[in-house]
Amino acid sequence: MAAKSNQESQIDVLIIGAGPAGLMAATWMARLGVSTRVIDKKGTKIYSGQADGLQCRSLEIFDSFGFADRVWKESNHMLEICMWNPDDTGVIRRSDRIPDTVPGLSRFQQCVLHQGRIERFFLDHMKKHSDITVERGVLPIELSIDESCIDDLDAYPITVNLRHLSDEEAKPAQQGHGVQDGLFRSNMAEDDTEDLIRTSREDKEEIVRAKYVIGCDGAHSWTRKQIGGELEGEPTDFIWGVLDIVPITDFPDIRMRCAIHSANNGALMVIPREHSLVRLYTQLSEIKPDASGRADRSKITPEVIIAAAQKTLAPYKITYKYCDWFTAYQIGQRVGNTFSKFDRVFLAGDACHTHSPKAGQGMNVSMQDTYNLGWKIGLVARGICDKRILATYEAERREVAKALIAFDHKFSRLFSGRPARNVIDEQGVSMDEFKRVFEKGNIFASGLSVEYENSMIVQAKRSNQALATNIKLGMRFPSYQVLNQADARPWPFQEWMKSDGRFRVILFAGNYRNKQQRERVQKFCQDLEAKGSFLRRVTPGNSSIDSVIEIFTLHSAPRREVEFFDFPDLLHPFDEQKGWNYNKIFVDDESYHEGHGKAYEGYGVDPERGCLVVLRPDQYVAFVGEIDDTASVEEYFNGLMLDGSNHRNKKMKRKQK
Amino acid sequence: MAAKSNQESQIDVLIIGAGPAGLMAATWMARLGVSTRVIDKKGTKIYSGQADGLQCRSLEIFDSFGFADRVWKESNHMLEICMWNPDDTGVIRRSDRIPDTVPGLSRFQQCVLHQGRIERFFLDHMKKHSDITVERGVLPIELSIDESCIDDLDAYPITVNLRHLSDEEAKPAQQGHGVQDGLFRSNMAEDDTEDLIRTSREDKEEIVRAKYVIGCDGAHSWTRKQIGGELEGEPTDFIWGVLDIVPITDFPDIRMRCAIHSANNGALMVIPREHSLVRLYTQLSEIKPDASGRADRSKITPEVIIAAAQKTLAPYKITYKYCDWFTAYQIGQRVGNTFSKFDRVFLAGDACHTHSPKAGQGMNVSMQDTYNLGWKIGLVARGICDKRILATYEAERREVAKALIAFDHKFSRLFSGRPARNVIDEQGVSMDEFKRVFEKGNIFASGLSVEYENSMIVQAKRSNQALATNIKLGMRFPSYQVLNQADARPWPFQEWMKSDGRFRVILFAGNYRNKQQRERVQKFCQDLEAKGSFLRRVTPGNSSIDSVIEIFTLHSAPRREVEFFDFPDLLHPFDEQKGWNYNKIFVDDESYHEGHGKAYEGYGVDPERGCLVVLRPDQYVAFVGEIDDTASVEEYFNGLMLDGSNHRNKKMKRKQK
Repeated sequence: MAAKSNQESQIDVLIIGAGPAGLMAATWMARLGVSTRVIDKKGTKIYSGQADGLQCRSLEIFDSFGFADRVWKESNHMLEICMWNPDDTGVIRRSDRIPDTVPGLSRFQQCVLHQGRIERFFLDHMKKHSDITVERGVLPIELSIDESCIDDLDAYPITVNLRHLSDEEAKPAQQGHGVQDGLFRSNMAEDDTEDLIRTSREDKEEIVRAKYVIGCDGAHSWTRKQIGGELEGEPTDFIWGVLDIVPITDFPDIRMRCAIHSANNGALMVIPREHSLVRLYTQLSEIKPDASGRADRSKITPEVIIAAAQKTLAPYKITYKYCDWFTAYQIGQRVGNTFSKFDRVFLAGDACHTHSPKAGQGMNVSMQDTYNLGWKIGLVARGICDKRILATYEAERREVAKALIAFDHKFSRLFSGRPARNVIDEQGVSMDEFKRVFEKGNIFASGLSVEYENSMIVQAKRSNQALATNIKLGMRFPSYQVLNQADARPWPFQEWMKSDGRFRVILFAGNYRNKQQRERVQKFCQDLEAKGSFLRRVTPGNSSIDSVIEIFTLHSAPRREVEFFDFPDLLHPFDEQKGWNYNKIFVDDESYHEGHGKAYEGYGVDPERGCLVVLRPDQYVAFVGEIDDTASVEEYFNGLMLDGSNHRNKKMKRKQK
Repeated sequence: MAAKSNQESQIDVLIIGAGPAGLMAATWMARLGVSTRVIDKKGTKIYSGQADGLQCRSLEIFDSFGFADRVWKESNHMLEICMWNPDDTGVIRRSDRIPDTVPGLSRFQQCVLHQGRIERFFLDHMKKHSDITVERGVLPIELSIDESCIDDLDAYPITVNLRHLSDEEAKPAQQGHGVQDGLFRSNMAEDDTEDLIRTSREDKEEIVRAKYVIGCDGAHSWTRKQIGGELEGEPTDFIWGVLDIVPITDFPDIRMRCAIHSANNGALMVIPREHSLVRLYTQLSEIKPDASGRADRSKITPEVIIAAAQKTLAPYKITYKYCDWFTAYQIGQRVGNTFSKFDRVFLAGDACHTHSPKAGQGMNVSMQDTYNLGWKIGLVARGICDKRILATYEAERREVAKALIAFDHKFSRLFSGRPARNVIDEQGVSMDEFKRVFEKGNIFASGLSVEYENSMIVQAKRSNQALATNIKLGMRFPSYQVLNQADARPWPFQEWMKSDGRFRVILFAGNYRNKQQRERVQKFCQDLEAKGSFLRRVTPGNSSIDSVIEIFTLHSAPRREVEFFDFPDLLHPFDEQKGWNYNKIFVDDESYHEGHGKAYEGYGVDPERGCLVVLRPDQYVAFVGEIDDTASVEEYFNGLMLDGSNHRNKKMKRKQK
């Protein structure tokens, strides 16, 4: 038994698990200045393998923090999907090509990069903005919630006992095939947390009292068990192997994403990766689960996986000299029956939904869980938002998890099936249906079809969607190229909607040469600047007027016919040290080098009359209305934001940028 | 006196001076694996101020090493130049707007970023690729050349004595105004190298024997004096101040590059920079040189500079709370009478040309000097190229320096003059002429108008320019978007022409669906693969076939109608470990997300018949001919390249990427 310790401390947020979901949560806390600890039972960061597919939406999110460029540079971009199916003679042929990302959806396209690099970018970003680090080799062993104070925002109702493991214990057992593998965390492995607890020695314990706990501790989530949650659903008998190799092959599409169905030798998915690597997902038909429902992991080796791939790919040949990583998994879809307890302990990522990795969704949906949750906890902890917004996490993300599970259920069964020999072969899978599901899945897989429902943070009822037909309520704000009025530089507009915790009002000022339109904008500014306005109410007296809610202006008049100082001061606030703010007013006009963004057309906004749009801190659209409808905007913010006088200082030491 | 030391060592290349020119040279050596030392008399890297303007061509060069993205992200992009001139009543008005970079010239546009960041990116890149570091606080004190062995490639004919300074000595004296300034290295300061030598104490000396020395030690170049070189030209009486501030102003174009001529209160140039900074270049009419030709530096303060700017900018107001840096300079243009000695000691950058900084050329032309020189020294040191190519450095770069000086002479006098009151005011400067010179200067200032003449490394005489009307002999290879045949990813084609020391053959394969065209390509490959071909001759036996000369193919057939394996093996060479090379064959076709590059049209190449292009390792065009004209290509390479058996191993420890 470990030595008990009396060491006790308090923290606003405790994050359990430092995978992509946990690091996304920590990144929010770093940006919002919320005191936070991150623990992970593993002793080291991962270096190869694991998840790798990145949705457009994930890249947009990385960009909102400022590191999408690193991903975009290092990743392999996937442009085209090639489908290979048996021809009349049973030989595989390329039957179709479709774009991997539906054109026009996003300024980013799907790409792949090893999870360890993504984690590196999160860690670098946290370091730049905060003192939050990941404490590795630390295991949570007990969690209790003091229900008597769960409504007290100053209280620390959650008590978690932590054990610091010795180095030896924190190292996951590999299967010893000479290459790194992921079998130790495959869903075919039993959970090893219990073992770690039983065998702990020479370690120490401490007690942490937290306001919020976020469990990002994977499919075997310890946190989930503490709050009595369950994953619901059953595994299938389909077992797939995953192999990362530098392939030596005469298959012509090895650098394309391929879905290959052989006549009688199973299916294969090809994912081209960075550094000449290719990931093969291949069905291991010869390995079956035993009576307990699990297959014998020791039978799965790189040789077994490549042999299966070779059969599917015949008559083409494939082999390798270098193998980077491999794993296997058993297809199954499960979703958690609860995502939180008392809105104090939350689950995210694999802790509340698991599915097959082939569609490249897992890491994305997991990160997007905590991208949804992080700002809510952060702004409540900072005293900026009403704690009732926390309930929207489960409401919003459980729907996404369910949609994911439904998609994966259909997709993975179609993928694992044998192609139909003809239209009356009912045992086989129709390749036309497969293609339809694949194409539909591609939109889903972009992460851009997520639509949050009406709630206290999505003001659908007082909105007028017709004023901005392509800025959909509850969906993420799309991006079009606009120009900065002050320096004529073109920008994807979304790039200015940083994940820094601020809500945003986008003032589509319309044709600003028009006198009436200028008067409407002036009236809007007067309303917001008036004594007692919601903007003044939610902004602390000693803070700049854009510190809680930021206003961006996008007008449609020709850039050269409007001057920067034609706009009211509120739209480009003055600072004693820095002068006027030159990064708030944008225009929909032709650029010198990158064409015309046609933003008003893209957004579906009348270029004469414009409109008002409110965005949440996560870029989701909260309100669409007339420029004059400041009353609805006021009602929206009054419903969820506390007075500026309630704000807590940022407690954590903030680093200089 | 310093203690003499017997310490002696040998090195292939000694670089004196670690500013942008020196670091560019060192970066080539890092990439080419040439043993190199870099010394700088200053004890620390610079942190603010200095040069900041970056040409399109400099960005392309950074991109060829792989770090343009860091510059592009951090820099301020300049899009538009606004000209302000007195109106009929003598009040300044915006009279014109022109694009800062001529549209279509490059995929990059001019931008500004503090020199210290550029140096950081060079240093990071050197660290990634080599063990070369900068030794600071090291002063060269004696240089001699043993003329008896200057033709012996194995000899180290240059002896340089170095003195390692104490920290105190290596710190440049600032003027003590409370902000960092650049007056200590302004051209209004006397050289302080002599002082450093005389006052040295507690230091040590060593002797270095080098094959090549590159003097990048600035306008007061010590190296230049050792080889008996002189800068020729005279200063003017015009004195300009430079001030980096965060401005507080009601001037509407403060985030544009502005050229402002007031009626009677001098001229001002505005350069908007990163981090809300703005650089002001302003004429200091009230400060005049004394009888010695130099002005009193102690009279120049930020207050003097801002006061001058305020007068020019009236009736607009400008002030600041934060000043980052300032300096002053006296306009003058001088060019060195020699650029090298025995092709063993070379001068580059300010050591062989100085001019006024306002046009943002200095850092660029200096870096481009050593970008031209570095690969030549590197490939000669490696035994890959004949040493006669070294003579092309002075031939090519002296012309560029002279063109720069001529441009700056005209531009700075026009800028410093008073605007003409009317057409008969001959004392004044015509604002129309100013605009014309400015616009012409803008093309010059892109760095893309450089054209090297026919020589052993530019095979103009056997070329047929008509086959590629926009791939100009002696100019840099332009960039158009192309797609990778293997994965459909769009790329700016130039991005593949990395600065790694390889020459390149670009095979414009034309319409590859056409049988005759395929036969021409096959014949081309047979010629190059034949026993005794120039390609086999220059490639060491144990190296891959693309290690000295790399072949890229760009065809014009529809991507989907041609297969990767339709192309001969030579065009996508096989590697035992890595399989086929998927990054050699490109196609001019529509992309899914970024339009059609129309590369054949852009390059001016017949999409049916194609052509052959040879590029030097610095992306300059060496030859244009028919696909069948391998004889001319052979002659070109035979003229400058040694047999592969002569290659020296990379001596320096190369780091793993």
